Amino acid sequence: MQHFLSVHDVTNIDTLVNEGLQLKKSPFAHKHLGENKTIGLLFFNQSLRTRLSTQRAAQNLGMNTMVMTVGQDSWGLELEEGVIMDGGNAEHVKEAAAVMGKYCDILAVRAFAGLQDREKDYAELVMTQFKKYAGVPIVNLESATRHPLQSLADCITIEEYKTTARPKVVLTWAPHFKSLPQAVANSFCEWMTRRDVEFVVTYPEGYELNPDYLNNAKVVYNQDEAFAGADFIYAKNWSSYEQYGKVLTKDPSWMITQQKMDLTNNGKFMHCLPVRRNVKVTDEVIDGPQSIVVEQAGNRLWSAQAVLKQILETL
Amino acid sequence: MQHFLSVHDVTNIDTLVNEGLQLKKSPFAHKHLGENKTIGLLFFNQSLRTRLSTQRAAQNLGMNTMVMTVGQDSWGLELEEGVIMDGGNAEHVKEAAAVMGKYCDILAVRAFAGLQDREKDYAELVMTQFKKYAGVPIVNLESATRHPLQSLADCITIEEYKTTARPKVVLTWAPHFKSLPQAVANSFCEWMTRRDVEFVVTYPEGYELNPDYLNNAKVVYNQDEAFAGADFIYAKNWSSYEQYGKVLTKDPSWMITQQKMDLTNNGKFMHCLPVRRNVKVTDEVIDGPQSIVVEQAGNRLWSAQAVLKQILETL
Amino acid sequence: MQHFLSVHDVTNIDTLVNEGLQLKKSPFAHKHLGENKTIGLLFFNQSLRTRLSTQRAAQNLGMNTMVMTVGQDSWGLELEEGVIMDGGNAEHVKEAAAVMGKYCDILAVRAFAGLQDREKDYAELVMTQFKKYAGVPIVNLESATRHPLQSLADCITIEEYKTTARPKVVLTWAPHFKSLPQAVANSFCEWMTRRDVEFVVTYPEGYELNPDYLNNAKVVYNQDEAFAGADFIYAKNWSSYEQYGKVLTKDPSWMITQQKMDLTNNGKFMHCLPVRRNVKVTDEVIDGPQSIVVEQAGNRLWSAQAVLKQILETL
Repeated sequence: MQHFLSVHDVTNIDTLVNEGLQLKKSPFAHKHLGENKTIGLLFFNQSLRTRLSTQRAAQNLGMNTMVMTVGQDSWGLELEEGVIMDGGNAEHVKEAAAVMGKYCDILAVRAFAGLQDREKDYAELVMTQFKKYAGVPIVNLESATRHPLQSLADCITIEEYKTTARPKVVLTWAPHFKSLPQAVANSFCEWMTRRDVEFVVTYPEGYELNPDYLNNAKVVYNQDEAFAGADFIYAKNWSSYEQYGKVLTKDPSWMITQQKMDLTNNGKFMHCLPVRRNVKVTDEVIDGPQSIVVEQAGNRLWSAQAVLKQILETL
Repeated sequence: MQHFLSVHDVTNIDTLVNEGLQLKKSPFAHKHLGENKTIGLLFFNQSLRTRLSTQRAAQNLGMNTMVMTVGQDSWGLELEEGVIMDGGNAEHVKEAAAVMGKYCDILAVRAFAGLQDREKDYAELVMTQFKKYAGVPIVNLESATRHPLQSLADCITIEEYKTTARPKVVLTWAPHFKSLPQAVANSFCEWMTRRDVEFVVTYPEGYELNPDYLNNAKVVYNQDEAFAGADFIYAKNWSSYEQYGKVLTKDPSWMITQQKMDLTNNGKFMHCLPVRRNVKVTDEVIDGPQSIVVEQAGNRLWSAQAVLKQILETL
Repeated sequence: MQHFLSVHDVTNIDTLVNEGLQLKKSPFAHKHLGENKTIGLLFFNQSLRTRLSTQRAAQNLGMNTMVMTVGQDSWGLELEEGVIMDGGNAEHVKEAAAVMGKYCDILAVRAFAGLQDREKDYAELVMTQFKKYAGVPIVNLESATRHPLQSLADCITIEEYKTTARPKVVLTWAPHFKSLPQAVANSFCEWMTRRDVEFVVTYPEGYELNPDYLNNAKVVYNQDEAFAGADFIYAKNWSSYEQYGKVLTKDPSWMITQQKMDLTNNGKFMHCLPVRRNVKVTDEVIDGPQSIVVEQAGNRLWSAQAVLKQILETL
């Protein structure tokens, strides 16, 4: 694998999932791979799981790590081409990416959607520019429209916890008072529609996802109907794609409760975290026996390590 | 040692002090212990000595390190159970601690007192929650009511510099214009009352410490009387415990001057740092031959390394 | 080399330049040198290249690294001696430097000019105090008046790209709307006047540099005349030294354009970065075949590694 920006960079998801499961058993088996190699982690936004799991994954592979927060440790970066740079951003991504590529063997970048300008967000300017100018492999640590390291961890988790050959997996919108990106939901659709699962997406009307990412997944507008017989409930809030970035409803009836989980086939509760307790999901559900959110987050480590391993093998 | 939250986690202080002194002589003798292990340092507050000495201690033991500042690198964490999370904190410590425990072999946490709500501060919610949910050893990098890595460094320093078998050690309040936590003073009392020293505490009336931490230490309200014949003067400011968090006085007559040091038995001047020069102590004293503040701070490294070594030995 | 604060700490620039070029060929040849050694990187200001290249240089030499941002990760530091510390800075550099010297084998420090008080900036208080109190080698990561790691990288770059034995190197002022330090320009003069090059400096009247740093370099006030036959154009903005910190002009006719580059001997375009595109230099020039800014920035790694290697050899 040369870059890891989305599912489209993955030749075989099965292989990558199995790689993750193998690394979970033998975390240090490939420590020679990263010798004398450094990964740079670049954050335009805050992070907890991604920041720590990617560092740990790199360390398990024998790599050195460097972490930098743009606009805090360094100044802001200009992304648009051809502009007169008399504003707040002191450096252009053309130079910044190229220079960081001189110091790092792999660059991993987080840059959330601004949720103001749909066209701009979906152009994925940060990832595109880094890929174009850095001259080294780029790893997506959650971009404007995708979070593929999360989706890979989700695939690993479903593989571990499934009890039938072809489980029913439900992605459900859940309420939140803030405007959140579509990245995790988009990515989950991109990956699940390529897995051997019965995949259903449910959300209130107005929360339709971009069709390029939804990838013809089955949509059911009735949450209860969607939950029926589900093996995995994957909850996530996102803001509207059509009325871009808008919070159209905070309808609490979409919150995941035990009553709703009881509609499932003793389904597992998943969420990418962080999660607002008693806003998106009740304490009862997330603290209950069906919740696997911590194990799911734990798999972020093996997801990142599988990706870095495959990239290191090409260097 | 499984956790290091306070002196109560230590079976034998003498052993731990000697461990520190041994490591000071042979810093890299146990570098294999930390191989393939990662410590996560989590800061809810600023740090200089703790941040650097704990990292270095871990490196000396062959560990990898990851540092994260809560609310800056990541979002804020909710500590209370059962709340509807519609406020500023995006993630609950239940998930955060458990997830970080998946990525780190040891978690070290700094979280100061808020000094608004005594009951809340003394409940030590952050440490308690991390211990409860992380599933890995927790090290206290200064909590609301304690700073045990500092106290252990203080014990090591007194062991090095004492010239009599049973030295007189005086903890003295010193003036400061800001409201500071009781953590360092509390902790010093907890440790000194368990050491073979003549321990005296002196402060202006109203600055009584919590009796559970003071641990029946001898209190003398007259600073000059307390200083008489002292081998070690340990200066520290703290705000009132009774009128919680209040600055009751800034009386400059409590500042440590050479005149006061002359009352001692050529006593050594100690302070945990940072220290406000010419507010808590004169330049003359801290720059003079009786001051051992830099050596004391240097021992923070061996204190941290002794603790991490004992924890690593149980993993 | 014991410290690296300026060109005055360098015995032989040629040797250091060749060291850098050798390390570029064999980055890991001296990995044993840094074993069990830790460098602390201390930032009073933001950084991108310096932060990452110095970390990577240390890693290539087998060192461990610790990075700290003053006033963010830690509190502010007081630099003046003898003051009553009742202001915003919680710790004096006397203690801070000495303590950090206990935890680090080398300390590298960035502290920009404040551009308010010329005498204070040119006294280089931060570097002076760290050198005085830390007790370990100090590396200048850009101080109030100098940026020697940049200048060394510039020397390495000119050595690589020169096509004649004694190239003509032109330092040209370029317009900027903000008040910027003289550090890079000062340093470049200090180094270039000690190299076997034809060195010319050009700037609008009022932008004269401090003569101690200019070091009798030839000054030409006509930019076109200066550019004639140049092999290297080194662009940089700085604020006035005479009217200290003032922006006297933003005259766009000083911006580097292709028309101006055409006056040179097919000269290479250099800039220390970050650079404001279409303010200091046109896209056409910086994106064109004469631009070597990325390669120049890449050499920051070998500059830092050469310096750290020479310091490690003395430890």
